Amino acid sequence: MNHALAKLLNIRHPLIQAPMAGGPTTPAMVAAVSNAGALGSIGAGYLTPEALERAIGEVRTASDRPFGVNLFVPGACKRDAARVAAVNAHMAEFRRELGIEAPSAIDEVAPDFEAQLEAVLVAAPALVSTTFGALTAAQVDRLQSAGCRVAGTATTVAEARHLEATGVDAIVAQGFEAGGHRGSFLDEFDRSAVGTLALVPQIVDAVSLPVIASGGIMDGRGIAAARCLGAAGVQMGTAFLATDESGAKPEHKAALPGAADTATTLTAAFSGKPARGLRNRFITAFEHHADPLPDYPEQNAWTKDIRAAAAAQHRPEFMSLWAGQAAGMARPMPTAELVATLIREARTLIPDCI
Amino acid sequence: MNHALAKLLNIRHPLIQAPMAGGPTTPAMVAAVSNAGALGSIGAGYLTPEALERAIGEVRTASDRPFGVNLFVPGACKRDAARVAAVNAHMAEFRRELGIEAPSAIDEVAPDFEAQLEAVLVAAPALVSTTFGALTAAQVDRLQSAGCRVAGTATTVAEARHLEATGVDAIVAQGFEAGGHRGSFLDEFDRSAVGTLALVPQIVDAVSLPVIASGGIMDGRGIAAARCLGAAGVQMGTAFLATDESGAKPEHKAALPGAADTATTLTAAFSGKPARGLRNRFITAFEHHADPLPDYPEQNAWTKDIRAAAAAQHRPEFMSLWAGQAAGMARPMPTAELVATLIREARTLIPDCI
Repeated sequence: MNHALAKLLNIRHPLIQAPMAGGPTTPAMVAAVSNAGALGSIGAGYLTPEALERAIGEVRTASDRPFGVNLFVPGACKRDAARVAAVNAHMAEFRRELGIEAPSAIDEVAPDFEAQLEAVLVAAPALVSTTFGALTAAQVDRLQSAGCRVAGTATTVAEARHLEATGVDAIVAQGFEAGGHRGSFLDEFDRSAVGTLALVPQIVDAVSLPVIASGGIMDGRGIAAARCLGAAGVQMGTAFLATDESGAKPEHKAALPGAADTATTLTAAFSGKPARGLRNRFITAFEHHADPLPDYPEQNAWTKDIRAAAAAQHRPEFMSLWAGQAAGMARPMPTAELVATLIREARTLIPDCI
Repeated sequence: MNHALAKLLNIRHPLIQAPMAGGPTTPAMVAAVSNAGALGSIGAGYLTPEALERAIGEVRTASDRPFGVNLFVPGACKRDAARVAAVNAHMAEFRRELGIEAPSAIDEVAPDFEAQLEAVLVAAPALVSTTFGALTAAQVDRLQSAGCRVAGTATTVAEARHLEATGVDAIVAQGFEAGGHRGSFLDEFDRSAVGTLALVPQIVDAVSLPVIASGGIMDGRGIAAARCLGAAGVQMGTAFLATDESGAKPEHKAALPGAADTATTLTAAFSGKPARGLRNRFITAFEHHADPLPDYPEQNAWTKDIRAAAAAQHRPEFMSLWAGQAAGMARPMPTAELVATLIREARTLIPDCI
């Protein structure tokens, strides 16, 4: 099998630990993955430039291997006070139960993207990946000139082609099974719900870049399968959520192993953008909610206090329990042991696949 | 890799041509697949016992190899005149354009299942597979005593376990990517939208039977991937739709190669049950239709005249253009050549996988 991705990223195994924003991808996890010969990634979408610099510094203290940083490319967000008022009324009962008050106002709904990008340019990690959109060709070029490889996330063939035209080095093909936010940016969401097994070969055939398969890959079987589909490597998120080094909340980690295949659903309730997580009371309360939500990331900013209080009070029914469709296969173990296990399993099926 | 399925069905290659009801699986296609060492299957869900006997006779004239027959297990269908009236009002413009009148009444909305089952018991094909539900343990036992192997279709782990408890010999794990009707019967549909890559290993781990992967598999890459996931074999439908022997309408065949990954959607508009097909005017006209549809198969019976007229008049906008999420990879060629190509491709990746 071809080892273009491993060469491109200067890593031993073409396996990327998915950048999961919001806490799970601790520097300890990222460093452990990279030290094991794969590629750890910092999910930096919600980090201020200062927090991002700090995280990168911690990873570099713990590892001299290549690692990645993921940014959320901002799209249009029209802030809307009426939508905010409506959604806060809908969430009043959650805050009452948690004993908290809604913030009176939120100034910044997301970190400044340009400042994040500058921080990344200075730090120059081996890989910069993006979600929710495409960088401009000029931005891609600046990152590459700084020594970074650049990957974009596509949920459709059209998105993959769009990303290729910006000059990126690789495409992350994110299937419908994937946990957390869907990276869709061109197609309306309902048109882009393509499963990993159908998506990967179609993207492989459509672009001339290494394709990284993601969505539903949890063990060596999934890795070997992705390689058969033509992927140059894999990106795995949920598989790493239950590791010792994962920064996911204890209730989140505990809910994964053994979860049913049908336990997850897509919801825009937490952030304003569709994401896959374990169905809980928060999600269910929005299932038949007719009012339009504030756009991403304004909705995300207005649910932050609820998620934080839920974490502090150990109330998983109000947490965003991101998880893919094979979450039940998550294994609680040290990160390094998981990487070694995944490689061993996949090589049992296809010796040179990882 | 294990060859349990090939042994079970006495075939050379553990590749099943999916039983596609409604015309595509002509006896010529079924026989060509079986003669090529895989397993052809008659989609008999809509066939009268007499038509089924005739189809089986034609397959046996053209091949002495094992083949399969698929039946639709009936569920509850409450016939509802008010829903029928409403849907016929909604479809009046289609009939007007096609120059046809709605039937005044429909006596039988589906063939008699018990009679179909008796016909199958007499003919005793190598494999009887079922969709939309589970046979009783007694029915499974009768088929096995008649010399048939029995497979049930599952879209979730719970459905696979349910089927295993009835004594079937194998499970078809149908992922979200699959074209045509979803076989879901236990879970509400929105809970059972699990992609093939996530579904197969979870079903493999949950049951002790050979698992046949289906949904999104279009070439040797998909076959090898499915085997890596732990499947004992594969079932492929859309891949066979464009072959010379396929009975799909010319407009249907022509629409497949090159179709976009996002061209399909799930719709209950044609039959009352969710099925995946190429988005067209008929489907779109029902996307925001708020009235509840008649149950399956009553809705199916009331759209039959429209589909027939659309076929006769070459109007694909009113046809059910069933297709999976990788339909664009369909290859127009003789069936035997497709089977040989699939096997060659898959063996290039994993020599003994098929």
